[in-house]
Amino acid sequence: MRILVTNRLPENTSVHWHGVILPNGMDGVSGLNQPHIKPGETYAYEFTLRQHGTQMYHPHSDEMLQMAMGMEGFFIIHPKNGPRVDRDFAIFLQEWFVAPGTATPNPAVMTDFNLFTFNSRIFPGTAPLVVRQNQRVRVRLANLSMDSHPIHIHGHRFKLTGTDGGSIPPSAQVPETTVDVPPGATRDFEFVADNPGDWAMHCHKNHHVMNQMAHDFPNMLGVKQDDVEKKVQNLLPGYMAMGSKGMGEMAEMNMGGPKNWVPMMTGEGPFGPLAMGGMFTIIKIRSGITSYEDPGWYRAPKETLAYKVG
Amino acid sequence: MRILVTNRLPENTSVHWHGVILPNGMDGVSGLNQPHIKPGETYAYEFTLRQHGTQMYHPHSDEMLQMAMGMEGFFIIHPKNGPRVDRDFAIFLQEWFVAPGTATPNPAVMTDFNLFTFNSRIFPGTAPLVVRQNQRVRVRLANLSMDSHPIHIHGHRFKLTGTDGGSIPPSAQVPETTVDVPPGATRDFEFVADNPGDWAMHCHKNHHVMNQMAHDFPNMLGVKQDDVEKKVQNLLPGYMAMGSKGMGEMAEMNMGGPKNWVPMMTGEGPFGPLAMGGMFTIIKIRSGITSYEDPGWYRAPKETLAYKVG
Amino acid sequence: MRILVTNRLPENTSVHWHGVILPNGMDGVSGLNQPHIKPGETYAYEFTLRQHGTQMYHPHSDEMLQMAMGMEGFFIIHPKNGPRVDRDFAIFLQEWFVAPGTATPNPAVMTDFNLFTFNSRIFPGTAPLVVRQNQRVRVRLANLSMDSHPIHIHGHRFKLTGTDGGSIPPSAQVPETTVDVPPGATRDFEFVADNPGDWAMHCHKNHHVMNQMAHDFPNMLGVKQDDVEKKVQNLLPGYMAMGSKGMGEMAEMNMGGPKNWVPMMTGEGPFGPLAMGGMFTIIKIRSGITSYEDPGWYRAPKETLAYKVG
Repeated sequence: MRILVTNRLPENTSVHWHGVILPNGMDGVSGLNQPHIKPGETYAYEFTLRQHGTQMYHPHSDEMLQMAMGMEGFFIIHPKNGPRVDRDFAIFLQEWFVAPGTATPNPAVMTDFNLFTFNSRIFPGTAPLVVRQNQRVRVRLANLSMDSHPIHIHGHRFKLTGTDGGSIPPSAQVPETTVDVPPGATRDFEFVADNPGDWAMHCHKNHHVMNQMAHDFPNMLGVKQDDVEKKVQNLLPGYMAMGSKGMGEMAEMNMGGPKNWVPMMTGEGPFGPLAMGGMFTIIKIRSGITSYEDPGWYRAPKETLAYKVG
Repeated sequence: MRILVTNRLPENTSVHWHGVILPNGMDGVSGLNQPHIKPGETYAYEFTLRQHGTQMYHPHSDEMLQMAMGMEGFFIIHPKNGPRVDRDFAIFLQEWFVAPGTATPNPAVMTDFNLFTFNSRIFPGTAPLVVRQNQRVRVRLANLSMDSHPIHIHGHRFKLTGTDGGSIPPSAQVPETTVDVPPGATRDFEFVADNPGDWAMHCHKNHHVMNQMAHDFPNMLGVKQDDVEKKVQNLLPGYMAMGSKGMGEMAEMNMGGPKNWVPMMTGEGPFGPLAMGGMFTIIKIRSGITSYEDPGWYRAPKETLAYKVG
Repeated sequence: MRILVTNRLPENTSVHWHGVILPNGMDGVSGLNQPHIKPGETYAYEFTLRQHGTQMYHPHSDEMLQMAMGMEGFFIIHPKNGPRVDRDFAIFLQEWFVAPGTATPNPAVMTDFNLFTFNSRIFPGTAPLVVRQNQRVRVRLANLSMDSHPIHIHGHRFKLTGTDGGSIPPSAQVPETTVDVPPGATRDFEFVADNPGDWAMHCHKNHHVMNQMAHDFPNMLGVKQDDVEKKVQNLLPGYMAMGSKGMGEMAEMNMGGPKNWVPMMTGEGPFGPLAMGGMFTIIKIRSGITSYEDPGWYRAPKETLAYKVG
């Protein structure tokens, strides 16, 4: 294959084909394997693919900054005669620090991120995974962020079937409901979608299913604020006492905020506020569907629904 | 089975049965799979168990806060005819930020925790694991904190035998002395306790075997403070210069402190201060015991004890 | 074997033989398994080795501080009749916080490290791994830091063959290009070096291939600073506006700085600045070499080199 890369950044770049077996001069570490691609220049990469699996591409030049700004993607190679699946999803994991009111992620942040994304989107902006019941599903996950992300699915168990190093033989496959994806790696897992419904799929680090402002505020749990609110409002008009009983009340608020800001938790489900954000989406498994358009909310048979007894 | 959940919190909640295969309406993500359980309400969950292994339960409603406050537990399903072990331990991993002098964990903290617990207790408050020599031991670990915890045992090697996704077949079992448990996952490991003694078992992140105040203080290593101490005491009566030679001296101190405060490292062993805290306990393996009461300290045969030669 | 340990620290210590199967009295947790080794004292450890693999040694006394200061090493046991490799490398992973201008790592730091090392060295001070083409290579990694380090190699895929718990049987070996090494663990991987060239090998957490000052500065990306520079220089002579277009320009600078300071990214390659730091080195694979001295830079055949087309 031949790939032409044009640099439209204001600084040098290069592209590394992560996990792809190729000649050294095509490996894309600028300075080491090739000259830097200067602003405006176009470079050609040419190599023959000799493998299949879930690989990635990303710059290997000012990489702390360029990857933190989102320069990265999947490089998926399908086998000529490989095991087939019915539905094949690819989700790129990333985390960002965008100060509320600003528009540019800060690439210098190392640990204290405030936005956590599936394919650069946060819930409820993430796309659902629509599947017909009993289809075989593959999910490919890739991570170029600073943290491992333990991605969990509900209602099913899966087996790990591949990494950016290739297919995992059946003898070595481990069953999981949560796969911890390290930075600089991909993970493929597969399962049969035999359980109909709307199933959560999310990172299991709790702050990673929240959006901006999910941390770094004082602890008001159990603090009576009834008469504090008025006093503070004398100094800070619009001040709102909250958090005495938990943060769940935030799910039902629609507070104003600075430009380019998102609430910590949000989203509406069929039974009220979903109160999630970040790395969260829904696997929608339905029998008899003929389209992969969003089928709306699942209606559980009444006898299979948790119910109020008092 | 039928489980009745009564909400005694001041805000909405729900319960998710993590890793359990059940109908969608029983999955417990409030807003998505069921209505929120309001304060005072009771909900029924009913489902048939079709699997065995180490699962968990936790809220899926204001989950960042409710799990950070400790709402979580094991959901262990034993097989009808499965492999048997002699001793079966279950340890839940969690981390907290409790500012010294306060009593409520701060759920908004994302990275900078200061208490790390086995079943909500810190060493030396953790229970020892008492085992008769040559028994087969299973340890089940569950993690709903923000960090992976690499749990290490001394004196033995184990094999990973299960996750919340089910049993790991023998062909895929990896030998380890440290199992890294990601958030949102469980890990079972098994070994034969053939090596008698008092063996440490702990998280191998060094700050996680420390308690409050284990970080966030200035670096005094190698700094001569002899005449500084008196000068500072003029301003801060009770000030104590320390850390010039290391932090080990703290193990032997019994400093006062604010209410609801624990020293960074503490505990007494048979040979002096143990100087540990947090995620640390002891596996006590003895031949011929007939009770699992704490057998006291191990007395190593003299020829097997490290000895002073100068 | 008999090992004599003399304590030349100003405080107590002990040595734990991580992953080694030995009698309880030789396990080295001071206070629990033996008396503390006081400053100036010498202790003898005696035990028979009954295993092979990649183990470690480190203090189990004031361990947060002593390990953070670098007291640790490999304890490698070769099999009498085991699988042979041609090249066998051992790389210890560690992270540190050394404030620019100071000389002592701060062991109280828990998350916000600023130096990331292979065998206590940062790139370009790290040694290359020199290999003759088609040799079988083993890399042993050990980690006693606070974070997992996902170590990635270019141009090859490997299989995980061992941990500190022993050899991984072939049926359980997983192919990877990145191995995530948790704290308190070792990982062995093996591959055939069939692809000649200069291949990057590095931690894939992007800040871990940077040096001091890689985080904790304001976000200037896209900010026009042309006339700001002069104004700030009135207050701060020598102030330099940078970062508007990215951080790549830092690779070509040779700024002054305080004593005992290293630039965030540095290093020169055959094609210009390498702009890396920290946990980064190069695997140099050559056909026909008869020495393992650094062979200089690889010269890729012209038809296998990415090239400028515009």
